Amino acid sequence: MVNKEMALLGTQRSVIRELAEYGRVRAQEIGKENVFDFSIGNPSVPCPPQVTETAAELLANTDPVLLHGYTSAQGDQEVRERIAENLNARFQADVRADNLYITVGAAAALCSCLNGLVCPGDQIVVNAPFFPEYKVFIEKAGAEMCLVDADTEAFQINFPLLEQAVNPNTKAVLINSPNNPSGAIYSLETVEKLAELLEAKSALFGHPIYLISDEPYREIVFDGAEVPFLPSIYANTLVCYSWSKSLSLPGERLGYVLVGDQVEDAETVYAAVAGAARALGYVNAPSLFQQICSRCVDLTSDISVYETNARILTEALTGMGFRLVPPQGTFYMFPETLEKDDESFCRRARDMDLLIVPGSGFGCPGHTRISYCVPTERVERSLPVFQALADSYK
Amino acid sequence: MVNKEMALLGTQRSVIRELAEYGRVRAQEIGKENVFDFSIGNPSVPCPPQVTETAAELLANTDPVLLHGYTSAQGDQEVRERIAENLNARFQADVRADNLYITVGAAAALCSCLNGLVCPGDQIVVNAPFFPEYKVFIEKAGAEMCLVDADTEAFQINFPLLEQAVNPNTKAVLINSPNNPSGAIYSLETVEKLAELLEAKSALFGHPIYLISDEPYREIVFDGAEVPFLPSIYANTLVCYSWSKSLSLPGERLGYVLVGDQVEDAETVYAAVAGAARALGYVNAPSLFQQICSRCVDLTSDISVYETNARILTEALTGMGFRLVPPQGTFYMFPETLEKDDESFCRRARDMDLLIVPGSGFGCPGHTRISYCVPTERVERSLPVFQALADSYK
Repeated sequence: MVNKEMALLGTQRSVIRELAEYGRVRAQEIGKENVFDFSIGNPSVPCPPQVTETAAELLANTDPVLLHGYTSAQGDQEVRERIAENLNARFQADVRADNLYITVGAAAALCSCLNGLVCPGDQIVVNAPFFPEYKVFIEKAGAEMCLVDADTEAFQINFPLLEQAVNPNTKAVLINSPNNPSGAIYSLETVEKLAELLEAKSALFGHPIYLISDEPYREIVFDGAEVPFLPSIYANTLVCYSWSKSLSLPGERLGYVLVGDQVEDAETVYAAVAGAARALGYVNAPSLFQQICSRCVDLTSDISVYETNARILTEALTGMGFRLVPPQGTFYMFPETLEKDDESFCRRARDMDLLIVPGSGFGCPGHTRISYCVPTERVERSLPVFQALADSYK
Repeated sequence: MVNKEMALLGTQRSVIRELAEYGRVRAQEIGKENVFDFSIGNPSVPCPPQVTETAAELLANTDPVLLHGYTSAQGDQEVRERIAENLNARFQADVRADNLYITVGAAAALCSCLNGLVCPGDQIVVNAPFFPEYKVFIEKAGAEMCLVDADTEAFQINFPLLEQAVNPNTKAVLINSPNNPSGAIYSLETVEKLAELLEAKSALFGHPIYLISDEPYREIVFDGAEVPFLPSIYANTLVCYSWSKSLSLPGERLGYVLVGDQVEDAETVYAAVAGAARALGYVNAPSLFQQICSRCVDLTSDISVYETNARILTEALTGMGFRLVPPQGTFYMFPETLEKDDESFCRRARDMDLLIVPGSGFGCPGHTRISYCVPTERVERSLPVFQALADSYK
């Protein structure tokens, strides 16, 4: 008598969560230090001290009725002004406060965009490898997900397949760069080619094809890599952002949607995002953290540990014979598995108390995701286990 | 090219917000003290000092990675245990932590219940007067709202009409007691009669009809009035709660759904709620405020001001010839308007800088909502204006 699809979604445990749960149980049996858990993408470095200081300062010196009161649905005006200013300074953009809709994290941002845009019969195109919750969000919004197989050479975009996938029913292409699970960043060349393709297809089909850019990892890049600012490259871009990773605040749920003036019929698109957020029950994004994040918008957590871990793992795994695209950001890497069946490979790793996630769930079999948002010492101590895993295939 | 219904929802300003906006502009013209704004239901008393102290203590003494990290989707285990303990102590209930699903406020709780339960063709029955966002939430969940006209004598339930409204397509009845906008509390007699009706109809139609009980005002009651605990009275009850009003934290978005073991097939119902929350993009409820609210679950803000305001207004308005049901809780009252056309009446009030909301929007024309979550001195200074309004109809 309940909605069966929803009950199924509420019952199915994700492979990742199950693996993490296994890790917790195993840690009780053999000691936490003996389980090499690379399953979950939970930031391992604390938020910058300024976040805690700002919180304390606001709590001590602001009228609680204002501090904890409803904000406007789109988010507090000054909050949006601070964020716009930051974007304009960094990306030579021309963002106004009213282009921003503050959301309860990136998931809410994505759901607001999808539910705001999707009409019956629409399709949303996603490139593998992809974050598996996209499928849940897309289908709940009433659209069909069209998956484009991965470019496994560089984890850019498989353009011949993308070209085939985009059709008159395509409402949007949803991308995620820096990418979970590959750690790759779409290069300027890639996004320019993507823009060209979408412009051509929009003209051909006589309606805009939106680009929804999910960017929670924008700030977590290595070796000074640059993440192109998409609204400057493709007009009909909607950016979804979150402070979950950059400020290590995943539980606090704070993000935004950016619908810049360059979007065709921007006011209507913004209204659709706002209307969807309203209909999904998102009254406003948490008020205290609106103030905190917007005041700390120039900061990030100390993300150097992720870069260190990436370097150690890339070198070591390559030396062991793993094929991998060196990650340019995030806290993930996505090497090829040493047997075709990635689930079997990850089971073998699990039996060595090395917890890594099969690529199949990300739409990219034959690979495994390693989440290295963990202390560097765990990475170092895990290397002999990776070696033993590799040796077992020799 | 966007979803037109969503764009419309994002464009339409609510009557209440428009009135509040008018009030802000008018305050700049004639001074804040000369505008008697009773439009918005925003708590006017601060959160208890313990909320601020708990926040400061947690920020100072907890590992930020844990404090601000993802919780499980259903909410932190200890958080749910504290809330369950509180419910059990107050209502002689038998709630376990796993019966609770922590949500991003009451709106998210409602949307998770509705989206979890609704199947194509379902109807949700709502009694007038009702909170207008219910219609938005119900329709987005894919159901039709069936409105039952108000019992304007006592703002209990119009049972003859409810009996007619419940049909084989009825998935749930959604109630709100203490009620926004009437301030009435459904009596034990009312809820027992409701339970009897729903049991009979469930048996007749061969499937459960759920009772969704939206209870953000549970703690705000006057003169020791009691709000019956519905899971003890009707088995298939889902309770939606929020700390927005009781702790004056409406912007922080913290609430829960309670699916007790007494619900038929409780695990499946809980899974459906959880699955819907997931598909709507609610990853977890804000983590810091999960800790804060659950530690302050025995407290409320100083709500005596609402009772004082209710008494002053009830006496004064009755003396002026207004007909009204004295509120038993919340911070609203819902007198009859002095002309049939409540919108015309509220326009006349507005021209006297008295901002009150027409009842039509709540499904109950010929009435007006007065939100008295304002300083008592504003209530007192408003009385001559109410008098002038009444006199203008003599």
